[in-house]
Amino acid sequence: MKLPILVVGSVAFDDIETAVGRRDNCMGGSANYFSMAASFFTQVRLVAVVGEDFPEAHLDTLRGRDVDLSGLERVPGRTFRWSGRYGADFADAETLDTQLNVFEHFEPKVPEAFRDTPIVFLANIHPALQLDVLDQIRNPSFVAADTMNFWITGEREKLLEVARRVDLLVINETEARMLAGESNVFQAAEAILRMGPKTLLIKRGAYGALLFHADGRFFVPAVPLAEVVDPTGAGDTFAAGAIGWAAGHSAWDFRSLKRAVLAGTALASFTCEGFSLDRLMTLGREEIDTRVQRLREFMNPD
Amino acid sequence: MKLPILVVGSVAFDDIETAVGRRDNCMGGSANYFSMAASFFTQVRLVAVVGEDFPEAHLDTLRGRDVDLSGLERVPGRTFRWSGRYGADFADAETLDTQLNVFEHFEPKVPEAFRDTPIVFLANIHPALQLDVLDQIRNPSFVAADTMNFWITGEREKLLEVARRVDLLVINETEARMLAGESNVFQAAEAILRMGPKTLLIKRGAYGALLFHADGRFFVPAVPLAEVVDPTGAGDTFAAGAIGWAAGHSAWDFRSLKRAVLAGTALASFTCEGFSLDRLMTLGREEIDTRVQRLREFMNPD
Repeated sequence: MKLPILVVGSVAFDDIETAVGRRDNCMGGSANYFSMAASFFTQVRLVAVVGEDFPEAHLDTLRGRDVDLSGLERVPGRTFRWSGRYGADFADAETLDTQLNVFEHFEPKVPEAFRDTPIVFLANIHPALQLDVLDQIRNPSFVAADTMNFWITGEREKLLEVARRVDLLVINETEARMLAGESNVFQAAEAILRMGPKTLLIKRGAYGALLFHADGRFFVPAVPLAEVVDPTGAGDTFAAGAIGWAAGHSAWDFRSLKRAVLAGTALASFTCEGFSLDRLMTLGREEIDTRVQRLREFMNPD
Repeated sequence: MKLPILVVGSVAFDDIETAVGRRDNCMGGSANYFSMAASFFTQVRLVAVVGEDFPEAHLDTLRGRDVDLSGLERVPGRTFRWSGRYGADFADAETLDTQLNVFEHFEPKVPEAFRDTPIVFLANIHPALQLDVLDQIRNPSFVAADTMNFWITGEREKLLEVARRVDLLVINETEARMLAGESNVFQAAEAILRMGPKTLLIKRGAYGALLFHADGRFFVPAVPLAEVVDPTGAGDTFAAGAIGWAAGHSAWDFRSLKRAVLAGTALASFTCEGFSLDRLMTLGREEIDTRVQRLREFMNPD
């Protein structure tokens, strides 16, 4: 049975500059990337806010992919904007500008029809908002969350409360070290697991990801890409692919989560191949499967 | 049939500082690490130079492991010394001091009895010396080489000549990008393969390694280590484990090289667990096999 996922996070306009070129006013935001990517595997319920300037055409695209937008508020003002630049190695983005706009007073309201959603993804927003959303859901069976350095240093107590209440934390390697106060990533992982989440996914960008689970650990490399265009949203797409795959198969055991992580890795690689959501827009399910197969070959020691 | 390997490179004293502590006057040098590590799999023939200050006890240790020292010159003066420091992430070392000493006028002489050695490893030394050694070997069946940023920028022409004459180049990721003038590691690999070597091994430190071969590509993660003590020599140990395994099994096809890379990865992880050659000194062959098994579990997608 395919289980629906509720996601709360940002929907945004991005201005992006990479070694390949630049693109202004493109579709972005963690919940936007997540919804689009997870929709390959299951139904998504989006809780977010946009301003008057947000294009209806993009919302139609999401609706066309079975993303339920009943929880998307449109309010007076401008949509959240982010502007960033990547170096030649496409590692961490340098943030050039952030305009919260309508996001500044965002109070996520989970529609009544969404309150029994079994799977929840709390994308990277203020941990107080993550908790607020969680309080509105009745007995979720699996909750996952992402976060960022800004909240780790500035809202540690709230973030630790989030960590205690989630089944899965998805976090990048630098942030994992920062959260644990431990430079060794494997020690950092053990420390984070003691904070509450039963499962941990550490994102390593071009170096892949690490899955820590009660039944074992799993390492997956990134899909080899001869050209990266724009890595924006790759982390959210990765989380969406992994959680989407597991929700779409109602399977949360270690072996299933390994397959879920492969799906997330494949999806993230497509995101990097174009600006914004471009590549995900044209992507077919069979392309994902082909890429997972390519990844398996690349990892095969025999 | 186990094939012997001839290695040329440095034998040195190291002064090392890491987050764990510091150790002065310890055994080091690329050919020293290589000899010790490859000796787990096959016979090694060492071509190098030491000064009057080099301890006979260490040479006895090498002899006890079937490392043939007929090509090791002892000359008047002091042995090569290197001093380096690692940050908390144990990535690239900062070189604090280099004293070439007897290495300054090193002219490698391959003993007559070594000139038919089938397998050759040219550790990181001046590419002119690498070529000089290669000229002294009669029809080697497999030649591998390592290098470093210093020669890539300063001795590019000589280094390209080395690249044309080797079967395998072992190089770290930053150096691969530098050598190819290409920031994408997969593009860099293709460019390097066009320079001559049929096979390429790119070392990624804590992120593992990439094998590029005519029959396919293979990614291996590093062995998860809860504590790193000193990564000095890990790259040479990795090369030694990989080339040593292949030479010890006389097997150079893609599938065998994948197993060789797993062995190298396991050996490199042991090197990181102690200062200098400490951990390799006490290591048993069955520990290597156990660690390869652990690595395979960590990579297993099913």
